Amino acid sequence: MRILVLNGPNLGRLGTREPDVYGTATLADIAPLVASAGTADAPIEADVRQTDDEAELVGWIHEAVDARTPVILNPAAFTHYSYALRDACAQLQGVAPLVEVHISNPHAREAFRHTSVVSAVATGVIAGFGLDGYRLAASAIIAR
Amino acid sequence: MRILVLNGPNLGRLGTREPDVYGTATLADIAPLVASAGTADAPIEADVRQTDDEAELVGWIHEAVDARTPVILNPAAFTHYSYALRDACAQLQGVAPLVEVHISNPHAREAFRHTSVVSAVATGVIAGFGLDGYRLAASAIIAR
Amino acid sequence: MRILVLNGPNLGRLGTREPDVYGTATLADIAPLVASAGTADAPIEADVRQTDDEAELVGWIHEAVDARTPVILNPAAFTHYSYALRDACAQLQGVAPLVEVHISNPHAREAFRHTSVVSAVATGVIAGFGLDGYRLAASAIIAR
Amino acid sequence: MRILVLNGPNLGRLGTREPDVYGTATLADIAPLVASAGTADAPIEADVRQTDDEAELVGWIHEAVDARTPVILNPAAFTHYSYALRDACAQLQGVAPLVEVHISNPHAREAFRHTSVVSAVATGVIAGFGLDGYRLAASAIIAR
Amino acid sequence: MRILVLNGPNLGRLGTREPDVYGTATLADIAPLVASAGTADAPIEADVRQTDDEAELVGWIHEAVDARTPVILNPAAFTHYSYALRDACAQLQGVAPLVEVHISNPHAREAFRHTSVVSAVATGVIAGFGLDGYRLAASAIIAR
Amino acid sequence: MRILVLNGPNLGRLGTREPDVYGTATLADIAPLVASAGTADAPIEADVRQTDDEAELVGWIHEAVDARTPVILNPAAFTHYSYALRDACAQLQGVAPLVEVHISNPHAREAFRHTSVVSAVATGVIAGFGLDGYRLAASAIIAR
Amino acid sequence: MRILVLNGPNLGRLGTREPDVYGTATLADIAPLVASAGTADAPIEADVRQTDDEAELVGWIHEAVDARTPVILNPAAFTHYSYALRDACAQLQGVAPLVEVHISNPHAREAFRHTSVVSAVATGVIAGFGLDGYRLAASAIIAR
Amino acid sequence: MRILVLNGPNLGRLGTREPDVYGTATLADIAPLVASAGTADAPIEADVRQTDDEAELVGWIHEAVDARTPVILNPAAFTHYSYALRDACAQLQGVAPLVEVHISNPHAREAFRHTSVVSAVATGVIAGFGLDGYRLAASAIIAR
Amino acid sequence: MRILVLNGPNLGRLGTREPDVYGTATLADIAPLVASAGTADAPIEADVRQTDDEAELVGWIHEAVDARTPVILNPAAFTHYSYALRDACAQLQGVAPLVEVHISNPHAREAFRHTSVVSAVATGVIAGFGLDGYRLAASAIIAR
Amino acid sequence: MRILVLNGPNLGRLGTREPDVYGTATLADIAPLVASAGTADAPIEADVRQTDDEAELVGWIHEAVDARTPVILNPAAFTHYSYALRDACAQLQGVAPLVEVHISNPHAREAFRHTSVVSAVATGVIAGFGLDGYRLAASAIIAR
Amino acid sequence: MRILVLNGPNLGRLGTREPDVYGTATLADIAPLVASAGTADAPIEADVRQTDDEAELVGWIHEAVDARTPVILNPAAFTHYSYALRDACAQLQGVAPLVEVHISNPHAREAFRHTSVVSAVATGVIAGFGLDGYRLAASAIIAR
Amino acid sequence: MRILVLNGPNLGRLGTREPDVYGTATLADIAPLVASAGTADAPIEADVRQTDDEAELVGWIHEAVDARTPVILNPAAFTHYSYALRDACAQLQGVAPLVEVHISNPHAREAFRHTSVVSAVATGVIAGFGLDGYRLAASAIIAR
Repeated sequence: MRILVLNGPNLGRLGTREPDVYGTATLADIAPLVASAGTADAPIEADVRQTDDEAELVGWIHEAVDARTPVILNPAAFTHYSYALRDACAQLQGVAPLVEVHISNPHAREAFRHTSVVSAVATGVIAGFGLDGYRLAASAIIAR
Repeated sequence: MRILVLNGPNLGRLGTREPDVYGTATLADIAPLVASAGTADAPIEADVRQTDDEAELVGWIHEAVDARTPVILNPAAFTHYSYALRDACAQLQGVAPLVEVHISNPHAREAFRHTSVVSAVATGVIAGFGLDGYRLAASAIIAR
Repeated sequence: MRILVLNGPNLGRLGTREPDVYGTATLADIAPLVASAGTADAPIEADVRQTDDEAELVGWIHEAVDARTPVILNPAAFTHYSYALRDACAQLQGVAPLVEVHISNPHAREAFRHTSVVSAVATGVIAGFGLDGYRLAASAIIAR
Repeated sequence: MRILVLNGPNLGRLGTREPDVYGTATLADIAPLVASAGTADAPIEADVRQTDDEAELVGWIHEAVDARTPVILNPAAFTHYSYALRDACAQLQGVAPLVEVHISNPHAREAFRHTSVVSAVATGVIAGFGLDGYRLAASAIIAR
Repeated sequence: MRILVLNGPNLGRLGTREPDVYGTATLADIAPLVASAGTADAPIEADVRQTDDEAELVGWIHEAVDARTPVILNPAAFTHYSYALRDACAQLQGVAPLVEVHISNPHAREAFRHTSVVSAVATGVIAGFGLDGYRLAASAIIAR
Repeated sequence: MRILVLNGPNLGRLGTREPDVYGTATLADIAPLVASAGTADAPIEADVRQTDDEAELVGWIHEAVDARTPVILNPAAFTHYSYALRDACAQLQGVAPLVEVHISNPHAREAFRHTSVVSAVATGVIAGFGLDGYRLAASAIIAR
Repeated sequence: MRILVLNGPNLGRLGTREPDVYGTATLADIAPLVASAGTADAPIEADVRQTDDEAELVGWIHEAVDARTPVILNPAAFTHYSYALRDACAQLQGVAPLVEVHISNPHAREAFRHTSVVSAVATGVIAGFGLDGYRLAASAIIAR
Repeated sequence: MRILVLNGPNLGRLGTREPDVYGTATLADIAPLVASAGTADAPIEADVRQTDDEAELVGWIHEAVDARTPVILNPAAFTHYSYALRDACAQLQGVAPLVEVHISNPHAREAFRHTSVVSAVATGVIAGFGLDGYRLAASAIIAR
Repeated sequence: MRILVLNGPNLGRLGTREPDVYGTATLADIAPLVASAGTADAPIEADVRQTDDEAELVGWIHEAVDARTPVILNPAAFTHYSYALRDACAQLQGVAPLVEVHISNPHAREAFRHTSVVSAVATGVIAGFGLDGYRLAASAIIAR
Repeated sequence: MRILVLNGPNLGRLGTREPDVYGTATLADIAPLVASAGTADAPIEADVRQTDDEAELVGWIHEAVDARTPVILNPAAFTHYSYALRDACAQLQGVAPLVEVHISNPHAREAFRHTSVVSAVATGVIAGFGLDGYRLAASAIIAR
Repeated sequence: MRILVLNGPNLGRLGTREPDVYGTATLADIAPLVASAGTADAPIEADVRQTDDEAELVGWIHEAVDARTPVILNPAAFTHYSYALRDACAQLQGVAPLVEVHISNPHAREAFRHTSVVSAVATGVIAGFGLDGYRLAASAIIAR
Repeated sequence: MRILVLNGPNLGRLGTREPDVYGTATLADIAPLVASAGTADAPIEADVRQTDDEAELVGWIHEAVDARTPVILNPAAFTHYSYALRDACAQLQGVAPLVEVHISNPHAREAFRHTSVVSAVATGVIAGFGLDGYRLAASAIIAR
C-alpha cells in the first residue's frame, strides 16, 4: 500500500528547530518509521514530502484524491488557518483515509494551537507521540 | 471589454469536487457563460484563470490594477482568511470594478463560511447561483 | 413569468434618502429594470411592492409560497433582525427561488449590516450593484 | 507491561448506543485489541474498566499514579467538563504515559465536543479510529 | 374560565409550513384541544387568535392585562427579538398567568432559537409537544 | 415651533404599567410639559403620538423628515432592536434635531436595555428624568 | 403505563430548601400528582427516584433505555454541565419520550441557569409550574 | 439652590481641544448657563470645578454626599473605566440627584465611548447637546 | 464548636500531588491546624473529611444544613463546574457560615481556575495561604 | 513586626458608606484588629493608611518594597482596573507577602467586581469577612 | 530641538524593578541616550520626567500641546486603561509628533499587555528595544 | 553587518498603492535608508527582498536562521494570520534579532490590523514612521 505522508511549513527544519519541542530526528526518519507499520504481506510504501507552500500542499491532496491514496498529513502551522487545505482535504472523505498527525501535543502549548480547521474533515487525529505518530497513523490506515 | 475571471484554491476541481454542492460543470464552462453577458456591440473577452497559490492570485489582481481591468473573483477558501488578497483587492477601488462571486450560498453552509475578509473592498457580491453567478457578475460590470 | 419584487422599510424613500449611498433612482425605476431581464419568449412581469410593515411583508411572502412565485426581496433593515421574515422565507425553499438583494454593499458599511438573518434561507444574494441588482436577480431567476 | 484502560460514562453501552457513531463492538473487544499491540517479548496485560462514576474514575487514576502504570483513557463525556479528572491525570505527568482516546472524531460532531479539559495534561491524543484507537494507544505506549 | 391563546408570525400557516417540523394540524385544532383541559365544573373558553403583526399581538396582551385574562402565548419568531412583546408581557406578572408555548423543541433546532427574550417574564414554558402543548398550558393555568 | 413627540410600544400604558418604574403620569401629561419649555416669543406646539406599530412609527419619522420637524422620540423597546427605526431616524441628520428620551435610566435596569441601536443617529439622549425628560428635550431643541 | 420520574441533586431537600423558590411540597407529593394524569383505562405507575449522584442518574436512564420506559427528568443542577447525563439521555431518542421538567422558571433566575445541555436531546421541556410540572409531563407522555 | 458642577480630565482644555467635537466655548461659559436654569424664586448657584485628578474628583463627590448637594458630573474619559468614581457616586443615591452629562453624543463616536461605568448609579444621563447639556441638567434637578 | 472541614477531589493526595504547588503537608495536618484557631473557652472540634465523589460532598453539606454546622470547604476542581455543590451550599446561607478555602492562589494559575461557581454563595473566600488557610477560616468562623 | 495596611478609594468613608454592605465600623477600628493578631512575643505594629489617589497608593507599595514590609492591601475599586497598582505589587513577589483583602464578598455582588487585576500577583486573597479580614490577613502573614 | 520624555507609573523604579525584564539601567540613563540621537546641527534637549500620577502625566501632555513640543511617551501600565491619557494625547495629532515607547515587547508578555488604548492616537510605536527605544524614538522625531 | 530586509505581500506596489497611507517612496528607497544607519566602522549591507508568496518568505527566514543574519521584517497582511511565518520567525529567537516593521500605524487603521501573530516572537516592533522605520530598525539592531 502506498501512503502519501505530507508535511507542512517549517517541518523541513525538523531536527534543528526547537529540538526540545520537536526532538532531534529529521524528516528522513519518517519513511522507515511509516514502513515499519507494514507487514510482509502488506508492505507500505511511504512517499514522504514536505513543503512550506500552501498551494503545493493543496495540490498533493488533489493528487491523493485522484489516486485514492491514503494520506498522513501534518499540516503544521496551516492547521490553524488554512481553509484552502481544509477544502482540499474534504474531498478525501469517502475516498481514502486522511490522518492528521501532530508531533507535539497542541493542547499543551499556546492557545492558538488548540484550534484546528482541518480536524473536522479528517478521518482521525493523532497528536503528542513525536515521530512515532506517523507510524501509528500508518498502522491505523492499514487496520481499516 | 476584457474581464479577468479569477478563481481561488480547489476550484480547479470543479465538476469533480462535492458535485452536490458545486454542480458538475467545470471551469471550462465559465468563459462562454461570461461571454454570454456581452452583446454584439459590447463583446466580452473573458480571461479565466485558476490557482491554488495565494501569491499568484495576488499577482493577478496587481495585473488588473495596472491595466484597470474589471475583475470577477471567486476567492474560494481564501475568502475567509487571506488579508493579503484583501489588501491587493483594495487597490482596485476607484480603479475598476471587482465582483466577488460564490457558487454556493455561504450563509447556508458552515459557520466559518459566513465571514468574508474580501467583501468590504469589493464592488459587490453575488452568491448562490451556481456558475450562472459569473454571467451575472459580467452583466453587472457592463451595466456600470 | 411573474416575479414578486418586495422591498422593506424606508425603501419607499429611495431617491431622497442618503442619495450618496442609495443613488437618485426611485422604486418606480425597478419594474422596467426587472422587465429588461426578460426576453420576447420569456417576458417578465414585475410586481414591485414596498412596505415599512413587517407583517405585510411576511404576508406577501406567504402569497408567494401559495402561488409558487419567485421572489426578489430587499429586506432593508429587516435583514438584521426579523426572524419572522426569515421563517416566512424558509417556506419558499424547494418551492420557488428567493433572491436577496441589497442596493449597497453591506460589508462596506456599519458592522451591524454585516449580519443577515435571511441569507441562510435565500437561494442567493446579490449586493452592491445599486438598482441594477434587481435586474441581475431577475436574470438569475430566469436562468434557473 | 500492564496497562490500565479506563472508560468513562455511557461507554458500558458500547455496541448498543448510537451504533452508527460508535460501531457495534463492545468493551469486551478492547482487551484483545490492546493485547495485540504487544509482542512475545513485550506482552501487554490490559486491565479494561468502565464506570459512569467520576469519583471511581479519579480513583483509578490515583491507582495508576501510585503504581506508575501507563493509562489509556477514554473520558467520554467527562472530557468536556471534569476538572476533577484533569487534576487527577496531571499527577501522571512525568510518572507514566497517559493516552487520551476517542472512538469517534469529536471535531466532526457537536461544537461542545471540540473542547477537552483533559488533553493539556495528556501525553498524546488519538481520535477517530473506532476501537482500533485503543490498540494504537497501546502501541504508542510501548514505543516510548 | 376564558383563556386568550395568542399565536405569532407564520403560525397561520400551520399545517402547510414545514409539516415535518410543525405537523399537519392547523390553528383550528387548537381551540378544542385547549377546551379539553377543562372540566364540566371548570369549562374553558379558548379565544384563539393569530397575527403576523407585532403591534396587534402587543395590543392583545394589553387586553389580557386589563381583563386579567390568562394567556397562552406562542410568540413564534418574535420569541427571539421582540422586546416590545416582552415589555407587554411583563405587565401580566402578578396579574394573570402567561404560559409560553413552542410547538417544536427550540433547543433541538438552530442556535438562534435557543434564546427567548420572553421567557424571563413568563410564568412558565412548555416546548416540544406539538399542539398538545396548548392543552398542557391550559391544564397548568387551571391547576394554579 | 412644532415638535413631533413620538412614543413607542407599551407607552400608551403609561400610568398603569409598572408605576414604580414609570410613575403614575400618563401620555396626556406630556403635551403641557413640552409646551412649558416654550416661551411667549417661541411657543411650542407639541404633537404627541403613541403607537405599538413599528411601521407607523417609521412613517411618522418620514413625515418629520419631509416637514423638517424636530422630533422627540421615546423608542421604548424598539430602542434595542429596530434597525428599521434607526434607518428612518438617520434621515433626520442634518435636517432637524432628533432627541432620544427614556423615562427611566436604562443603565440601571436589565443588561439588554444598555444597548440602543438608535442613539448613534440621534442628536442627543436624555434618560432617567421621568416625564420631565420630554420638557428637557424640548428645551434642548429650542436652544439650538 | 409505568413512568420513571428521576430527580437530580438537592431535590431530596424539596420542601425545606429555599421554599420561596421551590415551595413546601416534597418528593412524596410527586407520585400521586403524576398518577393523577392517568385515567382508569390508562393508569400511570410513577416510579419516583432521587439522587445526588450523577452516575446513579445515568444508570437509571440506561435502565429506561433498556426497558423503553418513558422518563420525566428534573436534572436540577446537572442541567447546566452534565454532558454524561446528556449522552445517556440521547439514547432515549426514538426509543421512549423524555420530558425535562424544572420546578421554577430557570430563565427568571441567575444567568447560568439559562443554559441546558440536556434540552437538545429531550422530547420536550416544561418549566415554571412548580410540582404540577410533573403532572403535565405525564399528561404529555400519555397524549403521544 | 447650590449645584456642584464637576468636570473630569482634559475638560480644562474646552475651547481649544478638538473644537469640531467640543465647540469653542470654555468652562467659564458653564456657570452662567447653569444659572440660567434657575428662577428668581429658585436661583441656582453653580460651583463649577475641573480636575484631571481622579482622587480629587472622588473627593468632591464625597463633599457632595456630606452636604447633600446635587451634582452635575461630566466624567469625561473617566466615564469608561473609573470604578473609583462609580463607587463614590453610588453614595449619592437616595441622598441627592446626580446627572451625568456628555457634551458630544458618545454613541456617535468610537466604540469604547459607548460604555459608561457611571450611568448605572446616576439619576439620569444627558448627552449630545454641547454645553447646553449643563443647563438641561440643572433644569432637571430643579424640576425634581 | 464543631466545624465540618470538607475537601474535594484529589485532596486525599495532599503531600504527594504536585508538592511544589500544594506543599508536603497532608490532610492529617489539617485537624490540629483548625483546632489551633480555638481557645480554651471556645475549643474547636474539626471533623475533617475528603472525597472524590460529588454526591458525597453534596450530602455532607446537607448534613451541615440540618445540624446548622459551620463549614470550611475546599471544593478543589469542583470549584469550577459543580453547580450541584453550589446549590447545596446555597442552603447554608442564613443558617451557618461557609468559608471557601484554596491552598494555592487560583488567580496565579491557569485561566480556568479563575472562575468559581461556589464563591457567590459562600460567606467568604480565603486563598493562597497553604494549609494555614484552614486555620484562618476557622478563626473567621469563630470571630463571627 | 510592622505591617503596612493600605486602603484604596472611598474606604475613608467606611462606616457611613452603604453600611448594609460595609458595616458601621470605621478605618480607626482596623489598627487594633490587626494588632490583635500579634502576640506578646511577636507584636504587630499596624500602619493603617487610606487614599483615593492611585499614585499615592502606588508610592506606598514602593515604600514597602524598599523596606521589605509585609502589606495588607484593600484596593477597593482599583481592584478592577489599576494595572499601575498591579505592576507596583508585582515587585513585592519574593520580597514580602502581600495579602489582598475585601470587606464584602465581591463574587456575591455586581459582575464587574468578579475580576481582580491584582490577585494574580498577591500572595493570597481574603474576602467576605468584614473588617475581620484584616485580622486574618495579619495572622496569615505572621504564620508564614 | 526640545523633546519631552514622559514616563508613567513604576518607571521610577527602573533598574531595581524586575531587572530581567527591564534591565539595570535607570531613568538617568535616558537623557544622554535621547541626546545621542541629535547632531551638532540639530542638538536634542531631552526633558525626562516620571510620575505615578495620571493627572500629572495628563498635565504634561497639555504642556506639550501648548508648546507644540514633540513627546516620547512610555505610558507603562496606563497603556492598558487610561482613556484620560488617550484623550490628552489625541490633542497632539497634527500639532507635534508623539512616539509611544515600551522597554520590553508587550506582545511577548501577559495577554492584558497586548492592548493599548493610546496607540491609535500616537504617531508611531516602538517596543522591545530596552532603553534604546528612547533613542530610536528621538531619531524618528528628528527624521520627520 | 549584513541585514535581511524582508517584505510581505503587496509591498512591491509601494509608491503606487494607496499613497495617502503608504507614501510615494518605493522599495528601492529602502536599501540606502537602512545603510544610512551604519557607520564607517560598522557599515550595513541591506539585502532587500519582497514577495507575495508566504512560502518564499518562510524560506528567507530559514536562510536567516542558518546564517544567523539579523532580519527586518515587514510582514504586511501576513501579520494578521500567517502562523507559518510566525513559526519560522520563532526559530530566530536567541539566534539573531528580528525587528517587525510597519510603515503605517496599524492601531490607527481597521480593527483586524490591531492583531499581530508575529509580534510575540519578534525582538521588537516599530510602527508608524513610514519608510524611516526601516532605518530605525537597522539602528536598533546595531545598537544591540
